[in-house]
Amino acid sequence: MSSRAHPVDGDLSPATDGGNLPIKSSPTRHKVGIPPKPNMFKDFMYTFKETFFHDDPLRDFKDQPRSKQFMLGLRSVFPVFDWGRDYNLKKFRGDLISGLTIASLCIPQDIGYAKLANLDPKYGLYSSFVPPLVYACMGSSRDIAIGPVAVVSLLIGTLLRAEIDPNTSPDEYLRLAFTATFFAGITEAALGFFRLGFLIDFLSHAAVVGFMGGAAITIALQQLKGFLGIKKFTKKTDIIAVLDSVFSSAHHGWNWQTILIGASFLTFLLTSKFIGKKSKKLFWVPATAPLISVIISTFFVYITRADKQGVQIVKHLDQGINPSSFHLIYFSGDNLAKGIRIGVVCGMVALTEAVAIGRTFAAMKDYQIDGNKEMVALGMMNVVGSMSSCYVATGSFSRSAVNFMAGCQTAVSNIIMSIVVLLTLLFLTPLFKYTPNAILAAIIINAVIPLIDIQAAILIFKVDKLDFVACMGAFFGVIFVSVEIGLLIAVSISFAKILLQVTRPRTAVLGNIPRTSVYRNIQQYPEATMVPGVLTIRVDSAIYFSNSNYVRERIQRWLHEEEEKVKATSLPRIQFLIIEMSPVTDIDTSGIHALEDLYKSLQKRDIQLILANPGPLVIGKLHLSHFADMLGEDNIYLTVADAVDACCPKLSDEV
Amino acid sequence: MSSRAHPVDGDLSPATDGGNLPIKSSPTRHKVGIPPKPNMFKDFMYTFKETFFHDDPLRDFKDQPRSKQFMLGLRSVFPVFDWGRDYNLKKFRGDLISGLTIASLCIPQDIGYAKLANLDPKYGLYSSFVPPLVYACMGSSRDIAIGPVAVVSLLIGTLLRAEIDPNTSPDEYLRLAFTATFFAGITEAALGFFRLGFLIDFLSHAAVVGFMGGAAITIALQQLKGFLGIKKFTKKTDIIAVLDSVFSSAHHGWNWQTILIGASFLTFLLTSKFIGKKSKKLFWVPATAPLISVIISTFFVYITRADKQGVQIVKHLDQGINPSSFHLIYFSGDNLAKGIRIGVVCGMVALTEAVAIGRTFAAMKDYQIDGNKEMVALGMMNVVGSMSSCYVATGSFSRSAVNFMAGCQTAVSNIIMSIVVLLTLLFLTPLFKYTPNAILAAIIINAVIPLIDIQAAILIFKVDKLDFVACMGAFFGVIFVSVEIGLLIAVSISFAKILLQVTRPRTAVLGNIPRTSVYRNIQQYPEATMVPGVLTIRVDSAIYFSNSNYVRERIQRWLHEEEEKVKATSLPRIQFLIIEMSPVTDIDTSGIHALEDLYKSLQKRDIQLILANPGPLVIGKLHLSHFADMLGEDNIYLTVADAVDACCPKLSDEV
Repeated sequence: MSSRAHPVDGDLSPATDGGNLPIKSSPTRHKVGIPPKPNMFKDFMYTFKETFFHDDPLRDFKDQPRSKQFMLGLRSVFPVFDWGRDYNLKKFRGDLISGLTIASLCIPQDIGYAKLANLDPKYGLYSSFVPPLVYACMGSSRDIAIGPVAVVSLLIGTLLRAEIDPNTSPDEYLRLAFTATFFAGITEAALGFFRLGFLIDFLSHAAVVGFMGGAAITIALQQLKGFLGIKKFTKKTDIIAVLDSVFSSAHHGWNWQTILIGASFLTFLLTSKFIGKKSKKLFWVPATAPLISVIISTFFVYITRADKQGVQIVKHLDQGINPSSFHLIYFSGDNLAKGIRIGVVCGMVALTEAVAIGRTFAAMKDYQIDGNKEMVALGMMNVVGSMSSCYVATGSFSRSAVNFMAGCQTAVSNIIMSIVVLLTLLFLTPLFKYTPNAILAAIIINAVIPLIDIQAAILIFKVDKLDFVACMGAFFGVIFVSVEIGLLIAVSISFAKILLQVTRPRTAVLGNIPRTSVYRNIQQYPEATMVPGVLTIRVDSAIYFSNSNYVRERIQRWLHEEEEKVKATSLPRIQFLIIEMSPVTDIDTSGIHALEDLYKSLQKRDIQLILANPGPLVIGKLHLSHFADMLGEDNIYLTVADAVDACCPKLSDEV
Repeated sequence: MSSRAHPVDGDLSPATDGGNLPIKSSPTRHKVGIPPKPNMFKDFMYTFKETFFHDDPLRDFKDQPRSKQFMLGLRSVFPVFDWGRDYNLKKFRGDLISGLTIASLCIPQDIGYAKLANLDPKYGLYSSFVPPLVYACMGSSRDIAIGPVAVVSLLIGTLLRAEIDPNTSPDEYLRLAFTATFFAGITEAALGFFRLGFLIDFLSHAAVVGFMGGAAITIALQQLKGFLGIKKFTKKTDIIAVLDSVFSSAHHGWNWQTILIGASFLTFLLTSKFIGKKSKKLFWVPATAPLISVIISTFFVYITRADKQGVQIVKHLDQGINPSSFHLIYFSGDNLAKGIRIGVVCGMVALTEAVAIGRTFAAMKDYQIDGNKEMVALGMMNVVGSMSSCYVATGSFSRSAVNFMAGCQTAVSNIIMSIVVLLTLLFLTPLFKYTPNAILAAIIINAVIPLIDIQAAILIFKVDKLDFVACMGAFFGVIFVSVEIGLLIAVSISFAKILLQVTRPRTAVLGNIPRTSVYRNIQQYPEATMVPGVLTIRVDSAIYFSNSNYVRERIQRWLHEEEEKVKATSLPRIQFLIIEMSPVTDIDTSGIHALEDLYKSLQKRDIQLILANPGPLVIGKLHLSHFADMLGEDNIYLTVADAVDACCPKLSDEV
């Protein structure tokens, strides 16, 4: 033994079951650890904490004097007090440039997005003024750019229109929009406050990719109205109705001047985007192109008076800052319920987008974001927004990326943008009078193209076929039916996938990898060999009520198949069934009953059930339920190798 | 090397990192197997098969001639053709005795259960005649006793009464009952036919225990009406309304003769049950006690004419067998929708009970039951039942247990019971005229007591606190509100638990168990030691969209905590983070993105990410998504020991 500094338990290969190696002696056998019986309250608190407070948000508050705790609390709610202290001129330089850049991007986008929500253009600008200010004080992401976004605008527009016609009752429509915004904010803040932020994780990445892609196409199709200068346009959003509407008006409804302006500037925008992609240093080319397009085209229309040739223009944009709208929110009646429903849906979708952005950029710069706190900030900004004539704002993917590339340092870039929007509202709105709608359409088409993430869809297709089905379901649901149906499909398939995951865990037959004591899936490692007379099965999931019957039946089927194989080849009959429990992290009473049933049925066939490496929770519960006693402490091993080791002498006795 | 027949990879303990052992040389390192790229169609079919056909139902049909296949198909739909062939007199003897026993038990129960469903007593008997016959031909369980059961009767009664008042419109009520029964059958058969039987697994064992216990208490409380002879009784089922109703009528509504009869026979029943428990051979004592009580009490009332003293009696029970009721089923109108809704709920609950019984007894006698085929049989029996004046029938726990103990061999015992019920309907119903209601109440109270499974509740409390909350939620929901609310609570908590399971997987820090190459959870094995400079974390679940963010954040928190510990003790800083992937059975695009984010953020801190033992699906997807290339093939190892082995020389270089 002295030549081996560290004997290895269960070190065994099928070739050496003669038993002439001393390491097989039982004294070296390691017991499966039974953790100390957990205090019931502690146990419950642990689960509770991991569910709702897994990020330990009060970590910093521990062992601090009261006054310090107050300061920490204040900084925690308003991170501005945290990063504001060491803010300097160098950081401001970065924020100023990026703030100006995203402002130049957001102003034309806002006007277009407001139209998607069937609102006056000014509400788009309003929503880029107040919410970014609130977020800058409360939010913890440094890179996110706040304001109205295409998908949420389309969603809220569709949902609101289903309740109230914006053309016949614009006032009621507006009131419902503010009500929905208010409750979207409440939803977001409540999810964060009650630490239920994990609920948005239930929307799978694949479903989001499909939904976003579908929404982008729907939005682009909607822009054909402005792009082609069509006056009579369908109110539906599905591709068939829209294309029908477009082509039925091809002969008399299209305006060639509009198309000329739109097409040339779309080309300009796409070219500038291409340039920006070629060199990261030229990020400002695509970022400023929209504003340049607006300025040039507005000037062009103004001097040629193309609006008299049928080129539609913005016409009028109210001057002045956000009026109060608290009194417009419905707090009673039928519209309250409608507002809550629409608000909850829009709030969740807006949250999904904002949180994804926050996480992406936080990972890039390696800082931590508290998802739940972030949700409270986003919620508060929409609540305040709804009281100051804003509709739902959230983080914009495209503008956040520009913000990041322009070198933003803190949320001050949002404040800069907000100030620029304020100045625009106060002084520049009359200048937008001659801005052609075709330009806005081109800008929006250009902005939503990146949402169609074909690369991601290809990756999803490669990685998981079922995910791809979810992705395509959401995609086609949005473009062929409506944005709500697409969302519903996305959520349903995501849930179905979760349920599938918990009902049908994987199981695998293990074999010994030659010259090691390691046992691995024989499908993955074809060189792995099975020990005659022993069947080793790994169960790859916690055993709960939702899968306990499946697990039991599947193990019995493996056994059945193996027994038939054995019969055909006249190998020794199977005497031991080893279940590798490493991945079985937890078990409930149904699971224990399933093991009991399995044990009883194996006993009838004279096959010994053996467990290998049950985890701390599992072994504790097996003891509590006396299944460990029924099975016999001796039949629970630390490793599969140990278990096989123990079985083999008994096997050789019989052979 | 020759003295070691089988060198062990990754055999290493912290004490020996000097590198003087030849086994550390890289040539012996095992590669992580990459399974052959799966055919897309095959992959999809595999998932599909494991989800819906995991039991391989067409196994026996393979490679058989056409005529044999037809016979197998026939036998598969009607198992009677299977077991009927070798049926013999010995088996019949067992079936006859058990059939007579359960008949004696079911007749008085049926009359009482029909009252729970607000139906005439005869419908209870009808439901013990037709459904058992259908089941005997189609079902595969040998021990189940078919007929009306207490919980389903209460449930359908409550749900129907919420729609139609049985006192003011008894005909409509009856029609709706048949409609609900029809759709309960359709639901059951459809779940089986479309192989969606796993859906009933979503109701957790804990929730079922709580629900059953609550329903038993509610049913027992309802019996106080008959037991105390109260005439004016509440129509609500919650405990407060019922007790209020009982005590407010204490002074003038109770009938002492009724109480005397009820109490003495309840004592008799409970005593006989006690005797039955003492000796398994005396199982017939409690099994026949109800019928004996009925006979004696009926005779007693008849000779004393106690009904004139206010003792309520059955009065009238129609003679004759089930009339057709197909024309009574609603196939249109409002009541169709109501019938479908009630039918679906009752069908699912009935199914849960029947399938649980089938599984329990199949495990005891070690035969296999095809859950989905069983559901088709149960469904067909209710469809046929609904057309022949039966309401929802299913497997009864108590009668099935008696059937089993009385030595039933096949479903013939159900046929025997059915014949006895037929004879009763034809000839004996007039004899029930003087049967006091108090006896029926006593029989039902006696029958539902075993549903209150305190042992199971204690085990659940011990094993899982959250499950216990689910159990108590369902229990109190049923007794304090209503049976529907209890069911709703049971289903909701079950789902919440599934969602919790998939969002918050466990993670653990691993350490090396001294003198082995095994790495285990340091919380379970306090003797396990961590290798300085290396942090090993095991993720205990597949990484999907629902948990990918949590997993990433949790790993970062482990690292953060460990780094703080290291700082405090001036150990070498952490340079390697090993993720043990054995339990990670699958990963989706969100999971891969989470790993990428983790990798990038670790790189910024100069910590190397290493994966140990990714499974076949995971390694395939990591390659497809090029994450394996990003990480470097060299940083993926077969075992944690291998990985630590590879890290240590690098570590010693720096120290």
